[in-house]
Amino acid sequence: LIKTYEPNLVQYPLIGIADDEFQTVKKLITKQEVRAVTLAKLQIQDDLVMWDIGAGSGSVSIEASNLMPNGRIFALERNPACVGYIQENLKKFCARNVKLIEAYAPEGLDELPDPDRVFIGGAGGQLEDIIDAVDRRLKPEGLIVLNAVTLDTLAKSVEYLEDHGYDVAASCVNISRTRKLTEFKLFEAQNPVYIITAHKGSTH
Amino acid sequence: LIKTYEPNLVQYPLIGIADDEFQTVKKLITKQEVRAVTLAKLQIQDDLVMWDIGAGSGSVSIEASNLMPNGRIFALERNPACVGYIQENLKKFCARNVKLIEAYAPEGLDELPDPDRVFIGGAGGQLEDIIDAVDRRLKPEGLIVLNAVTLDTLAKSVEYLEDHGYDVAASCVNISRTRKLTEFKLFEAQNPVYIITAHKGSTH
Amino acid sequence: LIKTYEPNLVQYPLIGIADDEFQTVKKLITKQEVRAVTLAKLQIQDDLVMWDIGAGSGSVSIEASNLMPNGRIFALERNPACVGYIQENLKKFCARNVKLIEAYAPEGLDELPDPDRVFIGGAGGQLEDIIDAVDRRLKPEGLIVLNAVTLDTLAKSVEYLEDHGYDVAASCVNISRTRKLTEFKLFEAQNPVYIITAHKGSTH
Amino acid sequence: LIKTYEPNLVQYPLIGIADDEFQTVKKLITKQEVRAVTLAKLQIQDDLVMWDIGAGSGSVSIEASNLMPNGRIFALERNPACVGYIQENLKKFCARNVKLIEAYAPEGLDELPDPDRVFIGGAGGQLEDIIDAVDRRLKPEGLIVLNAVTLDTLAKSVEYLEDHGYDVAASCVNISRTRKLTEFKLFEAQNPVYIITAHKGSTH
Repeated sequence: LIKTYEPNLVQYPLIGIADDEFQTVKKLITKQEVRAVTLAKLQIQDDLVMWDIGAGSGSVSIEASNLMPNGRIFALERNPACVGYIQENLKKFCARNVKLIEAYAPEGLDELPDPDRVFIGGAGGQLEDIIDAVDRRLKPEGLIVLNAVTLDTLAKSVEYLEDHGYDVAASCVNISRTRKLTEFKLFEAQNPVYIITAHKGSTH
Repeated sequence: LIKTYEPNLVQYPLIGIADDEFQTVKKLITKQEVRAVTLAKLQIQDDLVMWDIGAGSGSVSIEASNLMPNGRIFALERNPACVGYIQENLKKFCARNVKLIEAYAPEGLDELPDPDRVFIGGAGGQLEDIIDAVDRRLKPEGLIVLNAVTLDTLAKSVEYLEDHGYDVAASCVNISRTRKLTEFKLFEAQNPVYIITAHKGSTH
Repeated sequence: LIKTYEPNLVQYPLIGIADDEFQTVKKLITKQEVRAVTLAKLQIQDDLVMWDIGAGSGSVSIEASNLMPNGRIFALERNPACVGYIQENLKKFCARNVKLIEAYAPEGLDELPDPDRVFIGGAGGQLEDIIDAVDRRLKPEGLIVLNAVTLDTLAKSVEYLEDHGYDVAASCVNISRTRKLTEFKLFEAQNPVYIITAHKGSTH
Repeated sequence: LIKTYEPNLVQYPLIGIADDEFQTVKKLITKQEVRAVTLAKLQIQDDLVMWDIGAGSGSVSIEASNLMPNGRIFALERNPACVGYIQENLKKFCARNVKLIEAYAPEGLDELPDPDRVFIGGAGGQLEDIIDAVDRRLKPEGLIVLNAVTLDTLAKSVEYLEDHGYDVAASCVNISRTRKLTEFKLFEAQNPVYIITAHKGSTH
């Protein structure tokens, strides 16, 4: 029976998995809606190599894995608590083509194959070193997507990527979801996320 | 050679196709970011039956088709100009499991298999009749996703779905994208879209 | 010395008073930015009569009072804790032309002079009765401004006001403010507020 | 009769004047809602000196003038078309304490009294020189408010102000207003505006 090997897979969607289905540290996760936009910006095609730097809960890697069963995804994370949760999440969602690497990027990148796509969800204070390292390895038609929640990361990453010759755009995603409050549906805002997309040497 | 049969497919992503890659009437399209969130809310799994009512340019059907190659998608559209563009778009993106139906919903729904998922992108003034028709046919674990851009459709659809016993939530999606203006990146807002999700008889 | 009688007034702005300068119940307050837009929508001129229904902390009444020293403002509130805080806030900000009325609207409205402006910040489940009562008393050129944070209040109030012959518009206000987080400035979202403006018998 | 001398004043509100009441070049104006938040951030008290750099249509100066009849406001603008419209708008709204200065800032600032408040609505490519000039003249308890609509101005102004020792915060204001479309109310988004507030030597 296939079910004995993939006990949970059947009940989850490819993308749009509910946030609370993931094990997380302090509810830190790329939320459902932002995750979907992030994957759209990543321009996923099957059989790409993707690096997920600062993987957190692994939610982006897991849904990317659903989109590209023949792709190879490398999820880097240095926080031991996150690493443990990523392992559980990868198992729960049967994300077989995601390789978890416990490392503090840019450490750990040297051993990986050159990426077609790089997602930077968290830079842990190493933003510039990470961009330098990614830039040396990104394939010619590749692209970088970076999610920023602070003005500092937004400003610095755009400037640094442009200084490296990238064509950069940003989308600010503001989501509010209704939450039940007695018989009412209260609009609750999520903090805005800036999704930065960088193409090398492109003019589009 | 596969390429002679699928000349364009290789260059497009599964989701996140650029808006201007679609033929549209007056640029009316579910935009890239909102399309991605819509697909996330649709909770796509492979081999579902989906109805896309008021398909417009077909962009949601096309990306849904990329996500479920074994699914069956029925795109209803009544506007002849849209119908023509949907045909071109389906061809361009090789969306073989999308069946286009030229009809003014709820007409045209009777012949279709019962849906697991229904996306209502446009109701053309027939919102209540469409919800009635969908409600009679939706499978027990199915769900309805409806995108509203007016306060009237937002209010009416939520009320009507709740009156039919659905558990309803809404996400308001506000996106602004940078656009190049001389050497500057101007933040340009898209109009907000309310993505309404309705589960029948559920309490979640 | 004037200062002995108005010890604090000199240091506060007319509008844009910081949220944490007000005494509040559970931080429930019309926030600085939304308060400013609300006052703009109220179209304040000097010497108007304004009703503030569901006054909460009194912040809107207090800034309205700064804008119209010759106006008369009636702040209705039924929650005893709020009433106490409103008293303190009125005193702190020397809002001499705000009259606080402890009542559960629409009770308490009969004794007031007819209003030029009505602000409904909270309806406490009496939305329809309040609108009925306001409609009977509003002066011909008057207008109603209502802030909604739930989909239900948004939908119901717009529908009910239109049914009473008002011309209704709504502005959705989404604000995110930077907050310091170590050396970073994190964008923090406030929940969206829908500011509804209703003119009677107008077509604009 | 007072009315013969102030024929229009009686019909306009102090703040929240409708956008289309102002003469503008290409509809470039700080919109009603953003203008209100800007004034709130400016922390207006009566009898301050305010500079409005890049005054555009003069709308911020005019409403600031309504808030501080004893203040002195200096509106700088270099675009001759704007200058003409500012003159008309000042006259229409009887803004007697706004002095219009046709100059390309930072030129023209030397002759002005030291400011308590500076609003920078447009820097015309001279952002750094303007901040330098303002910084030399701003009174100790003064503050600067700057509205940015591009990522570049947002990032550069925050960085430059912080480098000058200012405590800087930003509010992103996203507004959508309903617009009538046949019998529907369509939510129309305005482009987001970043309102930057800078206090010198403050820690709040």
